[in-house]
Amino acid sequence: MKADIITVGDEILIGQITDTNSVFIAEKLNDAGFEIRQITSVSDKKEHIKLILNQVSQHTDLVIITGGLGPTADDITKETLVEYFETRLVPNAEVLEDVKKFLKSKGFELNERNVKQAEVPENCRIIRNKNGTAAGMMFEKNNTVYISVPAVPFEMKEMFETSVLPLLKKRFKTPSVIHRNILTYGYFESDLAEKLSDFEKNMHPNVSLAYLPSPERIRLRLSITSEDAEKAKKILDTETEKIEKEISDAVFGYGDIFLQDAVAGILKEKKQTVSTAESCTSGNIARLITSVPGSSAYFKGGIAAYSNEVKMSLLNVSEATLDKYGAVSEEVVKEMLKGLLDLMKTDYGIAVSGIAGPDGGTPEKPVGTTWIAAGNKEKIIAKKYIFGNRRLLNVRFASARALDNLRRFILGIDIK
Amino acid sequence: MKADIITVGDEILIGQITDTNSVFIAEKLNDAGFEIRQITSVSDKKEHIKLILNQVSQHTDLVIITGGLGPTADDITKETLVEYFETRLVPNAEVLEDVKKFLKSKGFELNERNVKQAEVPENCRIIRNKNGTAAGMMFEKNNTVYISVPAVPFEMKEMFETSVLPLLKKRFKTPSVIHRNILTYGYFESDLAEKLSDFEKNMHPNVSLAYLPSPERIRLRLSITSEDAEKAKKILDTETEKIEKEISDAVFGYGDIFLQDAVAGILKEKKQTVSTAESCTSGNIARLITSVPGSSAYFKGGIAAYSNEVKMSLLNVSEATLDKYGAVSEEVVKEMLKGLLDLMKTDYGIAVSGIAGPDGGTPEKPVGTTWIAAGNKEKIIAKKYIFGNRRLLNVRFASARALDNLRRFILGIDIK
Repeated sequence: MKADIITVGDEILIGQITDTNSVFIAEKLNDAGFEIRQITSVSDKKEHIKLILNQVSQHTDLVIITGGLGPTADDITKETLVEYFETRLVPNAEVLEDVKKFLKSKGFELNERNVKQAEVPENCRIIRNKNGTAAGMMFEKNNTVYISVPAVPFEMKEMFETSVLPLLKKRFKTPSVIHRNILTYGYFESDLAEKLSDFEKNMHPNVSLAYLPSPERIRLRLSITSEDAEKAKKILDTETEKIEKEISDAVFGYGDIFLQDAVAGILKEKKQTVSTAESCTSGNIARLITSVPGSSAYFKGGIAAYSNEVKMSLLNVSEATLDKYGAVSEEVVKEMLKGLLDLMKTDYGIAVSGIAGPDGGTPEKPVGTTWIAAGNKEKIIAKKYIFGNRRLLNVRFASARALDNLRRFILGIDIK
Repeated sequence: MKADIITVGDEILIGQITDTNSVFIAEKLNDAGFEIRQITSVSDKKEHIKLILNQVSQHTDLVIITGGLGPTADDITKETLVEYFETRLVPNAEVLEDVKKFLKSKGFELNERNVKQAEVPENCRIIRNKNGTAAGMMFEKNNTVYISVPAVPFEMKEMFETSVLPLLKKRFKTPSVIHRNILTYGYFESDLAEKLSDFEKNMHPNVSLAYLPSPERIRLRLSITSEDAEKAKKILDTETEKIEKEISDAVFGYGDIFLQDAVAGILKEKKQTVSTAESCTSGNIARLITSVPGSSAYFKGGIAAYSNEVKMSLLNVSEATLDKYGAVSEEVVKEMLKGLLDLMKTDYGIAVSGIAGPDGGTPEKPVGTTWIAAGNKEKIIAKKYIFGNRRLLNVRFASARALDNLRRFILGIDIK
């Protein structure tokens, strides 16, 4: 089954925003067994939208259209679809109810534009939107299915997962492609490839392996296409086990979780707690830990100790240590962690101090130099890393590394 | 003058990478006065590339093609262009010299694939590549210009800036398009549209206005196409002033900044400092503030006061207040802020306490209920908001709102 994605909106065409919607949609459709044929971005122009619909409909089974459904004058996708599918707009009580409910939840009054947004093409199937005022629409013509959703990412994603994918599952028979994600941290991609080279040589012939690296994890994706889901799953089980044997310390989970989720699982099981003391990451690790629902069970709090003043007054780092070794040093990060554990009274703690950049580097401590300590009252392990020269990326690297070091510390695995 | 961008590569279509090349190219071409008609991503398939070339060439003056020029078997763009333009590959001494020089600089030997890469279509103009082994190519057919460049971002960007743009300037006469971004926070898109409806009716006929909303800001983009850049700038100045008059409290900046950048500018100018006390956002505001280089000048530190224990021990919130009003209340958020200002000794402070969800809501305090306080030693303003029911989004909403409330507090503007 082939699918096309069309994103509508001038802002993509002038290079003002990066189209991440189609990345999300492509990945979801791919996982659902569709082959993405083409991704096309067009401007908010009726004639162009109709032209591209004509062009792609000859080659594809499914067209996903995002964008152009807002309340303002430049949003013309709905009108265009009305013309393309030769129908008309009719008021829809259900959609109006959704719009009213949404606005009420925000403390807003219904205005004329919102009422207009609740009108929908007569011959479409409605895809409801809980998080905004624009409903989605599903059409079918000459055996091709067309689905239009808003471009606001959180509205689109929710609608895609809860409504669009189930609708597609009913409407299309796609071959079962089964994926298995093995989530790792601690090694570079090239190191993993080395460690897995024998495994890859002897891998089951129907299975393929992809390396998907990001600052937060390296995802290993095993894929198999098969009519027999049970058999395919067993093959993936075997291959997964073989991978795990090679890199057991690095595997922190499966599916689509992150290090903070793995840490959550470990701490919940052990009924233990953690706190954070962050200089260069300044709250980012605390926010990642609490991005997991239920994190109040194991996270008490954190200190963004950005200034030396706060390192001293709250974390009890001594002025002498700061003067002698500098804020980015093994000594300071260890004192930060000791002070944190005294202050927060948690079982474990993380402390980070680094030079995020762009300024502040020296020949001995270049931008990217970061000390990370993980530990408890009995033992603290501090390690030095030199990340890159990009500020925001350095914060991401340091945060993921700190979470992995905590995971390894708690589990008694060597810290990388 | 119209331009199309075609990106070739399976990795985009399966959602494995985000296409940032076309963002770069679109922005550059737009600034050079081209109207980007369409951005199309296709897979590494000859027939598909030819089909899309046929389709777009009927509507455009310029086609930029990236990708598919590497040395491996799946790179078929050059071969496809040879067929499309009915030509043949010939060895090119200049390109071979470039390839040899590049490989030598990396300590590599020339291999057979590299020699093959130095063969180029006979009827094209070469665009040299200093940073890789794939040269770029320029073709012309029926008055449409086609330029093919590699997809490796740093190779492509260098070639685009140093060679492609100068070539285009020579070949095309393009008008200047000028954009102006007006960045706002505090109103919903539909409210802004209402407030600006008179303005839009009387807007200069050559100017267009787009609304680009996200949880962090609503960007208003004014655009004008004109031969006379000076005159166009003046028109945009006038229209910008008119918008500002209608929504002066909401405008926090221009260009591509965020609320943390606006707050940075204000605090730096005033030589004043801020600190944060965060319950539900748990460090996210601290991390946003320090995402701005140089933030150590005005940010001392923050407390992620996730547990009530930490609210009491570090921020001096009284147990009685917590018991009587609950952690998500006006009283608690005000005590958090007072305790923070005592602890951090900063000029201003922000305190946030809310129910991020998914659990923890009650009929009186549903998920999304969030109290935000901004203030100083003299005055604290606390407001209640009810965001949505999605945890991560609630954190984003609360963080942006808190930064805007701080901005409004410092500037003496009504808090929304």
